[in-house]
Amino acid sequence: MTAERPPRSRAERRRDSEQRLASDVDLWVATASPDGVPYLVPLSFDWDGETLLLATTESPTSRNLAATRVVRLALGPTRDVTVIDGDVEVLEIDALPRERGDRFAASAGFDPRALTTPYRWFRVTPRRVQAWREENELAGRELMRDGRWLD
Amino acid sequence: MTAERPPRSRAERRRDSEQRLASDVDLWVATASPDGVPYLVPLSFDWDGETLLLATTESPTSRNLAATRVVRLALGPTRDVTVIDGDVEVLEIDALPRERGDRFAASAGFDPRALTTPYRWFRVTPRRVQAWREENELAGRELMRDGRWLD
Repeated sequence: MTAERPPRSRAERRRDSEQRLASDVDLWVATASPDGVPYLVPLSFDWDGETLLLATTESPTSRNLAATRVVRLALGPTRDVTVIDGDVEVLEIDALPRERGDRFAASAGFDPRALTTPYRWFRVTPRRVQAWREENELAGRELMRDGRWLD
Repeated sequence: MTAERPPRSRAERRRDSEQRLASDVDLWVATASPDGVPYLVPLSFDWDGETLLLATTESPTSRNLAATRVVRLALGPTRDVTVIDGDVEVLEIDALPRERGDRFAASAGFDPRALTTPYRWFRVTPRRVQAWREENELAGRELMRDGRWLD
């Protein structure tokens, strides 16, 4: 067990979360089938400051996202997490501006437009963002509500 | 990017996964509401070699597990994962043998039997286990199917 650190302010948690969104390569993608079967995989992503971009080929994640249009994402290790509930838009692979796809390829380390396997884009708009490390940060973990960062 | 390592054998992946189950304190718990809303949180757990034990108080995780009786768990960082699909039994906090609860308290670092907030136990029996690090380990990632370790 690590020594308990004092809880961060909301501003610190937002800064830490935005740094992680800007620099991490992968995150956890939790989805659900319309009849309540959970699914979870790590995927690469890109964050442009407002939305997250994911790309998957035919898979349970892809089917669940297309059917329910909601996702829960997590970044960081289990004792220093940022969790994002988001709304999902599905885009065909040629429906994204070229620059945005280039940006994804640079961040994620692969270019789904260049693959023979058919991929689709999933653009996630965060609705709720939370961040906490351990028990003493459960209070105050909400950073964004209804798509707006809290002051 | 790290240099690509050669893919592990199934036996190596099983050994690595069982080591992690025996020694890790937390894992990711993905659940779904019956109408398809995903949920994901890190929780502490204990593994006794056959089942995983979780404990939560009233929460979306608790409600989802009680309603759907299925869970998807993940251990490890995003590029070295063990993923477990399991069936869930719900147990009232006093329904577990004392030794099993003691074991959980020692592993997880907290004793839900000692808290004033009401907790329940969730016992997870793995049905499917998969483990992979990167792209080159996607083939051969299945270690357990229908509750039986593959040879």
